[in-house]
Amino acid sequence: MISRTARKAMDTEALASAIMSGDRRALARAITLVESAREDHQEQASELLGQLTTATSERQAPKPQALRIGLTGAPGVGKSSFIEAFGLYLTGLGKTLAVLAVDPSSQRSGGSLLGDKTRMEQLSRDPRAFIRPSPSGAQLGGIARRSREVIALCEAAGFDVILLETVGTGQSETMAAGMVDVFALLIGPGGGDDLQGVKRGIMEHADLVLITKADGDLRAQARATRADYAAALRLLRPREKDPPGFPQALTVSAHDGSGLAEAWQAITRIADWRQEQGLTAQMRADQARAAFRDEVTALLLARLVADPTLAERIETLESAVASGSLTPLAAARQAVAQDQP
Amino acid sequence: MISRTARKAMDTEALASAIMSGDRRALARAITLVESAREDHQEQASELLGQLTTATSERQAPKPQALRIGLTGAPGVGKSSFIEAFGLYLTGLGKTLAVLAVDPSSQRSGGSLLGDKTRMEQLSRDPRAFIRPSPSGAQLGGIARRSREVIALCEAAGFDVILLETVGTGQSETMAAGMVDVFALLIGPGGGDDLQGVKRGIMEHADLVLITKADGDLRAQARATRADYAAALRLLRPREKDPPGFPQALTVSAHDGSGLAEAWQAITRIADWRQEQGLTAQMRADQARAAFRDEVTALLLARLVADPTLAERIETLESAVASGSLTPLAAARQAVAQDQP
Repeated sequence: MISRTARKAMDTEALASAIMSGDRRALARAITLVESAREDHQEQASELLGQLTTATSERQAPKPQALRIGLTGAPGVGKSSFIEAFGLYLTGLGKTLAVLAVDPSSQRSGGSLLGDKTRMEQLSRDPRAFIRPSPSGAQLGGIARRSREVIALCEAAGFDVILLETVGTGQSETMAAGMVDVFALLIGPGGGDDLQGVKRGIMEHADLVLITKADGDLRAQARATRADYAAALRLLRPREKDPPGFPQALTVSAHDGSGLAEAWQAITRIADWRQEQGLTAQMRADQARAAFRDEVTALLLARLVADPTLAERIETLESAVASGSLTPLAAARQAVAQDQP
Repeated sequence: MISRTARKAMDTEALASAIMSGDRRALARAITLVESAREDHQEQASELLGQLTTATSERQAPKPQALRIGLTGAPGVGKSSFIEAFGLYLTGLGKTLAVLAVDPSSQRSGGSLLGDKTRMEQLSRDPRAFIRPSPSGAQLGGIARRSREVIALCEAAGFDVILLETVGTGQSETMAAGMVDVFALLIGPGGGDDLQGVKRGIMEHADLVLITKADGDLRAQARATRADYAAALRLLRPREKDPPGFPQALTVSAHDGSGLAEAWQAITRIADWRQEQGLTAQMRADQARAAFRDEVTALLLARLVADPTLAERIETLESAVASGSLTPLAAARQAVAQDQP
């Protein structure tokens, strides 16, 4: 008789092979494991990822890693339409594509794969594309922590391009920027409307600003908006990781397809330049190290507040700090001193 | 015979009274204590700050808290000249002012109070002003952690305005923005020169952009630069804490004094509006809470790496993460598991 542990190990091995051979159902099952809050699922996911990262790094020479692209934009800028059109453009080039989508409806209605299938109808039927909505109700931090591992799963599954979509809260972009190679910001051809503006903290991550809906009546408006963002980008100092002439602002239309080829050219120009300069490996290593430190911190804090007495003590200290009767450093010292046996 | 501990307690009490009575030498001595790395100094500083925060919160009704202003700008934009001119403008209004200055020379030459006295010659002789350079060689995190406490000391000393200067690295501004009420970004009338651009991550903190050197031959250039920044600011979505019409871009001249009154008006407009909306207390409480969490995290991490065996283990895990052979979450779990007895 085979023990449950042994069967699970076999399952994990079989799952890893299936993912690497391109089995979409296996990939979907693995993502569900990674996103699960259950401790036994987390353990299995951890083992699976361990097997996949080892296998993936072994085959790196023949098969390059996926190009990871972050995409963000406020609701209404036409993010889904852009992803559908851009995704079909990429699959048309023969690329395989995984879209890790944020389903806006999921945040209200409980969400569904159906929601995303409706959002990106044609792309979801494309055999070269794989669309995965984020789990409904997942917390921001949770999404981000899992997204990194979902990306690793998609990479192991051999996709050429991975699109990570975020919704423009500011914090989610900072997290997303920490796990992609190129980050693009989508802006509507709004212009004058203040509420259309970019949330602080998002622009700083943008390698590329794409002005959407540049067709028909809105074409002129989109061009003017592009010029505004191009001017604003010129006020920012270029970073070491920016190829000459970047970041750029471009116009795109999901409706007539104009600008999609230019957007892809710009993305590959950035990615290729960073690869040539040896920056890609360095960026990924830096991102992984930063994520490691964040995880260590999160686990240490979680352990600290897991003890109800300590949690209460920390809450009291935090209130004292907020009211100004204790300095943050003094309070932190007391909080941590309590943790010692 | 009085014990050393008792004598130290008396010293601390005497120091607290002296600071609150406005004794500048006592304030300078207390700042040195706060900035010291010695454990006994840190303990005394902690006790001193405890006494001062209690005393300060007791007298809050008659004496309002100081207005804390963050000022940043790249080298060469005329930060020292602006602080000197703006400081003299404020003392001319009868305000008392503490300047927590970053001495740029200190980062190369070992720094000196003299450096700052030369930088702000007139202001340093003004009895209403107190200029304190940051300690030379202090690490970024160190500066920021101490700055918060130095601000508390200056507040206890009764200053009307506290100016916290940073040098435009991006990270130092994020830290500074977490301890001030209003944050101003200084920009030179450069315009076309790419290297004059703002580092990513700084613009997001700006409540006010001040274009310097708006006099003589550079006046027209400064006005054009102001228009560029005003346009760029309009692309950012207003935050809850922004009064209508803010953030703004203004021109200033340290040479002929033009724009100084307008800059002060804008700063007080922002501060007053936030006070009226009940946002100031909320911002300060949020800042203190965030600082508390950062300190707790820093102390927990410090404890984790204090054990040489664990430090080595973490380094090994971090390398594995950077090379991609281990996911950050899996590595973090191993790192923290090692910490358990």
